[in-house]
Amino acid sequence: VTPAQLLDEARSGSARAVGRLLSLAEDGDLSAVLAPDHARVVGITGPPGVGKSTTTSALIAVLRERGCTVAVLAVDPSSPFSGGALLGDRIRMGDHATDSGVFIRSMASRGHLGGLAAAAPGAVRVLDACGFDVVLVETVGVGQSEVDVAQATDTSVVILAPGAGDGVQAAKAGVLEIADIFVINKSDRDGAQATASDLRRAIARTPRAWEPPVLPTVAPQGTGITELADALEQHQQWLQRSGNLELRRRRRAAAEVRALALGLVQQGLAVPDEVADAVAAGTTSPRQAAQDLLA
Amino acid sequence: VTPAQLLDEARSGSARAVGRLLSLAEDGDLSAVLAPDHARVVGITGPPGVGKSTTTSALIAVLRERGCTVAVLAVDPSSPFSGGALLGDRIRMGDHATDSGVFIRSMASRGHLGGLAAAAPGAVRVLDACGFDVVLVETVGVGQSEVDVAQATDTSVVILAPGAGDGVQAAKAGVLEIADIFVINKSDRDGAQATASDLRRAIARTPRAWEPPVLPTVAPQGTGITELADALEQHQQWLQRSGNLELRRRRRAAAEVRALALGLVQQGLAVPDEVADAVAAGTTSPRQAAQDLLA
Repeated sequence: VTPAQLLDEARSGSARAVGRLLSLAEDGDLSAVLAPDHARVVGITGPPGVGKSTTTSALIAVLRERGCTVAVLAVDPSSPFSGGALLGDRIRMGDHATDSGVFIRSMASRGHLGGLAAAAPGAVRVLDACGFDVVLVETVGVGQSEVDVAQATDTSVVILAPGAGDGVQAAKAGVLEIADIFVINKSDRDGAQATASDLRRAIARTPRAWEPPVLPTVAPQGTGITELADALEQHQQWLQRSGNLELRRRRRAAAEVRALALGLVQQGLAVPDEVADAVAAGTTSPRQAAQDLLA
Repeated sequence: VTPAQLLDEARSGSARAVGRLLSLAEDGDLSAVLAPDHARVVGITGPPGVGKSTTTSALIAVLRERGCTVAVLAVDPSSPFSGGALLGDRIRMGDHATDSGVFIRSMASRGHLGGLAAAAPGAVRVLDACGFDVVLVETVGVGQSEVDVAQATDTSVVILAPGAGDGVQAAKAGVLEIADIFVINKSDRDGAQATASDLRRAIARTPRAWEPPVLPTVAPQGTGITELADALEQHQQWLQRSGNLELRRRRRAAAEVRALALGLVQQGLAVPDEVADAVAAGTTSPRQAAQDLLA
């Protein structure tokens, strides 16, 4: 079966063909045959325990009601060694497993040339080419993974929960710049109002052309999910109107190329034991050793 | 003031001199003048909200009772943009701020050549050279940051809490391989026993020369912290006996050199807009673009 045939099958609704294309993209080089299509690419991230999976599941339901097909890429940067796939969890799978308009795939960080920074945009390109209306890229964690995911998407949704402590602080300090939409999930809990006000104040301090809305949700009951879907559409319209969509897609492609190039360099970089020992003993500086390694 | 003079002052107890040496190391190249000393280097990590700061504070108190000087490097990988410093928090600072045997420094990921994978080992080398008995490297998050931190330390402590959900799963899936000691904090809560049993079963499935203990603590009351300090000493003795200490330090130096070398390459890598646009349009493959970029 050629990639072109797989693409035909995928566009006709074969989940199996989509999966094979993703595997081919992860292993080798498929993208030359992949023309961009019309998918809206949405990143969903936030610290553990805020209800990302439940929110994603509820959002899928609303998007399906609106007639959109949805692909979910569940990225797990917390599994550098084991290649585990935590996020394709049972609840979400159970809700949408029998729906042929929903495709779900997990991706761990292990073994991709250039890491997730290269692999996630590559997988997004495949899912777009397969004709999905919306591609949701879900990541757990607060850290570099968010930045990589934001670089791979058009719209970046950050989910928080009231009183999430570290999480809210982290969002205020580091994720603020990359979030296009904030969701305060579990908004029926104490402190939801305070968390939202905190965030809105932080947002107001750094004015931007697009001001991220702060949306309260209670995902298990579906509360606020319609508003989230509306906000996604509004952001997409703003991206197109303002010319930012093209800029983001250029940035995404550049990030992918850069990550792949670094991965190729990394493959060729081995530090000899005697060099490492000299650095450990303090007789060679690490920067000198790095320069020698590249020379 | 020369680096050698700063080092003299630092070794005589000047926190200011330690701080200036760290800044010099972050900016430039100091390590040629830094001979390794005797510090035990301990990484402390775990998901947000498990009580890392409280545990670290309680551990510092026990180490101080045992006559050790302690340097804390609080690494914040969640602040890629803002360079914020979340972890040097008030509680811990308040407890030990007036103790000249405790030095605390925060480090964000921003702006370091080679990222935290290079900057953290560099800072550890400075703190070791300054003569501290113990260097604690604290990181928040579950992800690549843990791996980088583990590479920068002799002993890697992973803190979890009962029912931490994602956190425990992540630890089982990805952090298991890098943890030398597990702490179940908040062990007076429901589910602590189950979490500990879960972990011990997971550990038993992947036998290693050093079997990571699983230690229950209630950090605010200091419960279990003496046992944690004992476990740290036992692990250090094992490292020395088994020859693994030298191997780990070689690996740490190699990781630092590799990260610096990649950082140097990255500095020189710019993806031209027309290349990014061609990749976004599907007319050039990202891998071809990456290879062209390196050629």
